[in-house]
Amino acid sequence: MTLTKKPVTGMKDILPGEMQIREYVQQLIRTTYQGFGFLSMETPCVEHIENLNSKQGGENEKLIFKIMKRGEKLKINENSTEADLADSGLRYDLTLPLSRYYANNAASLPSPFKALQMGNVWRADRPQRGRFRQFMQCDIDILGEASNLAEIELILATTTLLGKLDFRNFTIRINDRRILKAAAAYCGFPEEAWDEVFIVLDKMDKIGLDGVAEELEKEGFPKEAVEKCRELFLTVTPDIDGVRFVKEKLDGFLDPDCADGLMTIMNSVDAVKTADFKIAFDLTLVRGMSYYTGPIFEISMDEYGGSVGGGGRYDGMVGKFTDRHAPFGKKFSDSGRGGAESLSSGEEASG
Amino acid sequence: MTLTKKPVTGMKDILPGEMQIREYVQQLIRTTYQGFGFLSMETPCVEHIENLNSKQGGENEKLIFKIMKRGEKLKINENSTEADLADSGLRYDLTLPLSRYYANNAASLPSPFKALQMGNVWRADRPQRGRFRQFMQCDIDILGEASNLAEIELILATTTLLGKLDFRNFTIRINDRRILKAAAAYCGFPEEAWDEVFIVLDKMDKIGLDGVAEELEKEGFPKEAVEKCRELFLTVTPDIDGVRFVKEKLDGFLDPDCADGLMTIMNSVDAVKTADFKIAFDLTLVRGMSYYTGPIFEISMDEYGGSVGGGGRYDGMVGKFTDRHAPFGKKFSDSGRGGAESLSSGEEASG
Repeated sequence: MTLTKKPVTGMKDILPGEMQIREYVQQLIRTTYQGFGFLSMETPCVEHIENLNSKQGGENEKLIFKIMKRGEKLKINENSTEADLADSGLRYDLTLPLSRYYANNAASLPSPFKALQMGNVWRADRPQRGRFRQFMQCDIDILGEASNLAEIELILATTTLLGKLDFRNFTIRINDRRILKAAAAYCGFPEEAWDEVFIVLDKMDKIGLDGVAEELEKEGFPKEAVEKCRELFLTVTPDIDGVRFVKEKLDGFLDPDCADGLMTIMNSVDAVKTADFKIAFDLTLVRGMSYYTGPIFEISMDEYGGSVGGGGRYDGMVGKFTDRHAPFGKKFSDSGRGGAESLSSGEEASG
Repeated sequence: MTLTKKPVTGMKDILPGEMQIREYVQQLIRTTYQGFGFLSMETPCVEHIENLNSKQGGENEKLIFKIMKRGEKLKINENSTEADLADSGLRYDLTLPLSRYYANNAASLPSPFKALQMGNVWRADRPQRGRFRQFMQCDIDILGEASNLAEIELILATTTLLGKLDFRNFTIRINDRRILKAAAAYCGFPEEAWDEVFIVLDKMDKIGLDGVAEELEKEGFPKEAVEKCRELFLTVTPDIDGVRFVKEKLDGFLDPDCADGLMTIMNSVDAVKTADFKIAFDLTLVRGMSYYTGPIFEISMDEYGGSVGGGGRYDGMVGKFTDRHAPFGKKFSDSGRGGAESLSSGEEASG
């Protein structure tokens, strides 16, 4: 019998030349982040299926590689569903396992806990150029830090690393989930449709403001709401002034502390940054994962056709494992969908 | 809903303190083996189910974590078997994937190819002290080197590493699958029962020579064969003289080059070794994996209750992927069953 020579679909053999580069980059990531006080940690690649299916992972939950039960526990009959046959699966990101880890080990961890993870994740995505079914994510997260110091430190650590890797002239685009919601409320979109509105907003870079407005109208949203939305996005600028404008415009819909926090992050990062990049306010930034609750960001590089990483605050996620009153938290984590693997940083604060 | 805090059964969260030690050891392994000219490489953690089931992995094949087909390919009905539902699985070792990798990428690799792999493997073993369902293996293999230079270099690289890790006074136990077979033929055991005989021999360290003889008789083997076997094992010494004795005793059953090769390996290693260890001939050494065809070895440390690694030559394995005439090969690879993870080295030569 001749066996199969090629790797499984969407995954790849790594040749020695590429491995050399990977080991260099991984070592630089490790030393840079450890220099900022992040501690290496690891979770198993296999997670409980009920955790993976817990609606934290958005679209990624449809892409889980499920692992079959074994021995007597595997009972196959005509009524068996996928759910009956699987008891675990490969992790699709490092954030959900980190939340489980923190809930499981908090007593043995410092507070705040600054975590560094480098590990493979798996998604049964349609294989295509630059998108693999096994790829490495590199996450930094801060857990137990309620203030925006967490965001500032994560952005500085990430951009310092990118500078060391000789990336220049990139942009950190920043927004806040609460600003997005306030904007949707201000425009008059019905609350139950906000997620739908955000999905359309997310296409701004591809179809432009006219395209977004057109699509919102086609979805049946009130003309008046769409017009208010168009006017808001036409006026807002991608800088501190833009945040200030939004703070005033959304008065009554938005907690002013939220806009102030964003301005603090932008000012502080600008004041102490060492790498060559700019930080921009981007009211169209949505981010796919459903667990984000506060500031969100993405790293854009023109030469790589868009996002190479990002993250955001994810309040309440650890609480889902501890059954405590949901703490608030923050996270910056990568999307992993832009390339073979992407640098990323993650943060969570439960205070 | 409260999610599950604990990791899945048999796998573990790694805390920052342990990660620090692991990163130190992994870096030392990498630099030491790269100093011997081994090149880092990687295969996906997921392998084709037909490769994993191809009878290369011995007992480990019963322990595969199987991954379910997805989408339309998953058809569940009352006649579905496990095999119908899975298209891939997690690798149970690094050797089978290496053979696939070499068959797939030989044109882009040097010859001989000296491979270094550090990666997780998964076995659905009964969880118990020191035995995990996800653990890291560290393998070195030489492919494309027919001579015993491969064995010598692998033993020197491995023992140099162990010396750097401050291990002292350990033993490399060495044997050859062909000597085992010749011994079985000489004693008069029927060829179809050799594997069974070897399984009993493998228990020598636990039940002693009398226990082995007793069990062989109980299995129904001829008294005369068992007696010849007992006498052979009583007389053989754990050194070069033992190999010389076996070479003469098994005259007519054994290719003398095989014994000469073993003596060359033992003499060369003794002459140039730098670490504090001894190399011993052990006629009772069997090794579980079915793919071994020539010299085999294990590293014993009294303070760790036995084997902490090992390997052997595995001729013909790459050929199963290329459909060429089976080449001959060598391999030293770890068992991974002695501890949470074990250092190991692997070698294959196809010439």
